[in-house]
Amino acid sequence: MSKFISIIMGSQSDLTTVQPAIDLLKEFKVGFEVKVLSAHRTPKLLEKYVEAASRRGTKIFIAAAGGAAALAGVIASGTTLPVIGIPVETKSLKGLDSLLSTVQMPPGVPVASMAIGRAGAKNAALFSLEILAIKDRTISAKLNTHKKNMRVKIKKIKIKV
Amino acid sequence: MSKFISIIMGSQSDLTTVQPAIDLLKEFKVGFEVKVLSAHRTPKLLEKYVEAASRRGTKIFIAAAGGAAALAGVIASGTTLPVIGIPVETKSLKGLDSLLSTVQMPPGVPVASMAIGRAGAKNAALFSLEILAIKDRTISAKLNTHKKNMRVKIKKIKIKV
Amino acid sequence: MSKFISIIMGSQSDLTTVQPAIDLLKEFKVGFEVKVLSAHRTPKLLEKYVEAASRRGTKIFIAAAGGAAALAGVIASGTTLPVIGIPVETKSLKGLDSLLSTVQMPPGVPVASMAIGRAGAKNAALFSLEILAIKDRTISAKLNTHKKNMRVKIKKIKIKV
Amino acid sequence: MSKFISIIMGSQSDLTTVQPAIDLLKEFKVGFEVKVLSAHRTPKLLEKYVEAASRRGTKIFIAAAGGAAALAGVIASGTTLPVIGIPVETKSLKGLDSLLSTVQMPPGVPVASMAIGRAGAKNAALFSLEILAIKDRTISAKLNTHKKNMRVKIKKIKIKV
Amino acid sequence: MSKFISIIMGSQSDLTTVQPAIDLLKEFKVGFEVKVLSAHRTPKLLEKYVEAASRRGTKIFIAAAGGAAALAGVIASGTTLPVIGIPVETKSLKGLDSLLSTVQMPPGVPVASMAIGRAGAKNAALFSLEILAIKDRTISAKLNTHKKNMRVKIKKIKIKV
Amino acid sequence: MSKFISIIMGSQSDLTTVQPAIDLLKEFKVGFEVKVLSAHRTPKLLEKYVEAASRRGTKIFIAAAGGAAALAGVIASGTTLPVIGIPVETKSLKGLDSLLSTVQMPPGVPVASMAIGRAGAKNAALFSLEILAIKDRTISAKLNTHKKNMRVKIKKIKIKV
Amino acid sequence: MSKFISIIMGSQSDLTTVQPAIDLLKEFKVGFEVKVLSAHRTPKLLEKYVEAASRRGTKIFIAAAGGAAALAGVIASGTTLPVIGIPVETKSLKGLDSLLSTVQMPPGVPVASMAIGRAGAKNAALFSLEILAIKDRTISAKLNTHKKNMRVKIKKIKIKV
Amino acid sequence: MSKFISIIMGSQSDLTTVQPAIDLLKEFKVGFEVKVLSAHRTPKLLEKYVEAASRRGTKIFIAAAGGAAALAGVIASGTTLPVIGIPVETKSLKGLDSLLSTVQMPPGVPVASMAIGRAGAKNAALFSLEILAIKDRTISAKLNTHKKNMRVKIKKIKIKV
Repeated sequence: MSKFISIIMGSQSDLTTVQPAIDLLKEFKVGFEVKVLSAHRTPKLLEKYVEAASRRGTKIFIAAAGGAAALAGVIASGTTLPVIGIPVETKSLKGLDSLLSTVQMPPGVPVASMAIGRAGAKNAALFSLEILAIKDRTISAKLNTHKKNMRVKIKKIKIKV
Repeated sequence: MSKFISIIMGSQSDLTTVQPAIDLLKEFKVGFEVKVLSAHRTPKLLEKYVEAASRRGTKIFIAAAGGAAALAGVIASGTTLPVIGIPVETKSLKGLDSLLSTVQMPPGVPVASMAIGRAGAKNAALFSLEILAIKDRTISAKLNTHKKNMRVKIKKIKIKV
Repeated sequence: MSKFISIIMGSQSDLTTVQPAIDLLKEFKVGFEVKVLSAHRTPKLLEKYVEAASRRGTKIFIAAAGGAAALAGVIASGTTLPVIGIPVETKSLKGLDSLLSTVQMPPGVPVASMAIGRAGAKNAALFSLEILAIKDRTISAKLNTHKKNMRVKIKKIKIKV
Repeated sequence: MSKFISIIMGSQSDLTTVQPAIDLLKEFKVGFEVKVLSAHRTPKLLEKYVEAASRRGTKIFIAAAGGAAALAGVIASGTTLPVIGIPVETKSLKGLDSLLSTVQMPPGVPVASMAIGRAGAKNAALFSLEILAIKDRTISAKLNTHKKNMRVKIKKIKIKV
Repeated sequence: MSKFISIIMGSQSDLTTVQPAIDLLKEFKVGFEVKVLSAHRTPKLLEKYVEAASRRGTKIFIAAAGGAAALAGVIASGTTLPVIGIPVETKSLKGLDSLLSTVQMPPGVPVASMAIGRAGAKNAALFSLEILAIKDRTISAKLNTHKKNMRVKIKKIKIKV
Repeated sequence: MSKFISIIMGSQSDLTTVQPAIDLLKEFKVGFEVKVLSAHRTPKLLEKYVEAASRRGTKIFIAAAGGAAALAGVIASGTTLPVIGIPVETKSLKGLDSLLSTVQMPPGVPVASMAIGRAGAKNAALFSLEILAIKDRTISAKLNTHKKNMRVKIKKIKIKV
Repeated sequence: MSKFISIIMGSQSDLTTVQPAIDLLKEFKVGFEVKVLSAHRTPKLLEKYVEAASRRGTKIFIAAAGGAAALAGVIASGTTLPVIGIPVETKSLKGLDSLLSTVQMPPGVPVASMAIGRAGAKNAALFSLEILAIKDRTISAKLNTHKKNMRVKIKKIKIKV
Repeated sequence: MSKFISIIMGSQSDLTTVQPAIDLLKEFKVGFEVKVLSAHRTPKLLEKYVEAASRRGTKIFIAAAGGAAALAGVIASGTTLPVIGIPVETKSLKGLDSLLSTVQMPPGVPVASMAIGRAGAKNAALFSLEILAIKDRTISAKLNTHKKNMRVKIKKIKIKV
């Protein structure tokens, strides 16, 4: 199975945040890989990884980082593949720093920012699938089913008052 | 020329913000269309438009809105195509309201947020092209040239002190 | 008993926030109903519900949602009945996102925002009763008693220092 | 014509903000009056005015104030009629202070906050009309026409690219 | 002992915040009284209390409130005695709402804001004592001793590394 | 005429902000002096000035500063006289930095913060007068007249709609 | 061993925050000392200490403080040695107040701000070492090793999915 | 003259912000160079430049960038020389985004952040000089003169009231 999606997190402690993305991609049976690589601590490894992954067939990068979150932007600087950013919640500023560092990219180097935290991680995976689904009917059909199931689940809820 | 990208803005006054996206897509000669449709003022028209555009072959939606910016999220609720949001700068809160309303989506309904304002608009277009480039070598090549030109342009700058 | 007030929450987890509204409406013996419906996950169900509820005699909508909280605004887009928004506290941004997404509505589509969280929920119910009380002397009298009791309760407090 | 709606602003300089509310109520031919009264500078006048207006038949109060905007809350403390707040944009904090002072009311004393500035003022008037429309078919019909016109206006917009 | 200082809190739950002020005034043996009175829930009682306290010889008001914290401002509207505000920490916005509602007073009606929470409460008491000390040498001497003790205490700290 | 009030500003450019305080103190004919002294650029001059002014009979310090506004706090560190802070509006953060640097003082060293900018300056002067008025019936009477005039002025405003 | 680096914290409770700086300097075997001294509570002691430390050979000051964090700025006002600030996380505003009070220094009095909290403390120590390393090859070599180890550590992480 | 200080800006438009740093370094006659290089647009050029400059004798990097300002952090990732960041004011968020992206660095990769905008630029230059002055008596003497002149200048200001 080709690893179309590459998930990179800036620190091992970001795994809790990233987990919903991993779970969803498994559920959809889409090939992906997960790496810990930091824009600030392992910049050359990161650069090499982005180039190598692109050559091996990665189609989309997902990057999760917190604080002065340069990760997604730095990946985007080295590729023209789509890069999706997950701002990780931080202890003091609660992810507002991560969000602004991820989303406020200069013109010319796009990063697609998702919401802060685990909701953002799940949506990063879903958004990747939506990209792949443009040319992949199987994924497209699964996405529609997933969306429908979400509706059905909500429809069933009864609130007793 | 198929209109792969659909740009929707919540108000005619958002055109100034959206313009860099329009200019870039023209430059890349990728088919697109531009509409003014509001999640709050023309919800049914918007719903119908999203459905019709999807049937006609739209692959990606770009939505620009300000304030309580529901537009991108509402489009995303009605499709499994990728939706990219441009938070429009607002008079009082300077787009912080637009940004949070666009990016803080619940799990299950992804919106890819770009930066506030015109930088975000240019990047929304670029990001759309990156998505299309996954399966289109011409666009991919143009993106690489565009990235290279950006480098060359910066490289030439001399600061006299 | 006619169900004059319709309380809609975007997610079942919002029930804790909404509870004070439910409790107060019960105390006032005013007909109401509670639904889980999402602007982002069940948009068509929501649209149909708003139309059906309006036909059945709903006079006021109360909407509770968090994050990119489009719920109240989307309801307001589909009705000319008063819509009251309760911004739900969120994990990372503590409801600032919910508040701005609820209150910063564009001209033409009003949403009446209450405070973030349970205080806002209680006040959403009280505000609904104030609306109904304009033409209903029984509710008006009860509201005055409620206000008076609040005063009496505070008056009785003695702080020992 | 009974003056069902009372618009109070904390300072004469708030008139620019409040104007869209005045214009809309005129357009709808609903009776209203406008006063400058301050929670901080004329508290007793304000108290008396709120009581007198209520006796004379006012049904709804609209209050516009900026900064530590106590106006709407203080009016709400003295009545069980609906009170709608318009946070006025301020020079330094751009109305974030006004918004939080207006919307973060304690349980028991509801204020319905609109958006910061002129958009909020227009919506305050519209929301008042929605309240009156519950028992007034003429206003209800006009509101539906107003909503429809808004749709038609947007529908006609053509963006040339 | 005359009660020169009057501490008013908007809700009984604010007592934990206010306690350091009470403790300090006791330590300084300056007469004071503590009341629960709300600008929003007991406006007339508050108004009467402010007038009565002024007649009885109160020299300074200290007001603690959270959220849309109108308390200090409303007291200041009814007196020309100094009013000191303590912004109480709130659940969602952490007291930023309380701070802005307390400090951003319009010209003409001063409120002296202290820091958010218990540090602010202690300083409200100290600041009151500084005011009284202008004409009271005993308090002035005690304040100097208090300041000196603070220095001595810090001077003694040894950090072992 | 004794100079009871000392106004210190961190930079000459703060004079525009401070002017309303100067004007009001002149109007009240209360002795005061104005100095440019900086906690960061002239710390020893500031320290000496605070000591000398205290010996000469200064009763109250008013300090205006912007950005990392240490001025009021540093003055408060060197005296037990009341210190009132005016947060000056800044270019980028609009005075939010000045406000937090002025108001968030640690327990033991009170600073009374006014609103950001010129409104805060006027209120700093008024608050100083309120302090002096505790023991000065002439000032007290003038303050009551000033408050009354403010009311009369607002009362006369007629809004034509 | 000369004490080249002086770490000052505004309160004993800041030790938890400062600890990572202490640990790193020990690891690097660079001389340093740690003091509790407050810009607000012990201003003269602080002033004397800064002068004495400079005479004794201190090359760099590190200052940790929270809230209206004047410490680093006040040290910088009394020396032309480099001053590094660590904004301490606060209870209500989470260190945003500390950060703005530390970083927003006026032109002429530089403070080098690190991140809020313990990450900032570790980096304050590292940054001090980077300064010393300019003229000290041993420290420079150790810094390179430290950087390399950081890389190696991340490189070894394997995420199982 | 060796170029000890390297000033890098992310975009040519940042020159206005950076100018005060250039002016001060000229005034101090310290060798420096100025480059436009972007972490996002010219990552490899930046990487090579940082390595080459270090080999040629650069001792300190100053980096100015706005928005998702990765520049200073990315430079810091590639060197153990001191890196000083200048957050550039941005159109919508006024530099709050730039500040958080610059200062909130993870442990292990320090960036010394200055204030937003031109004040920060001047201080970045001053701070560089303070670092060089540790081992350079000429610069140290000039810094002391510069500090003294600043004092003298303020001392001479007379405010007429």
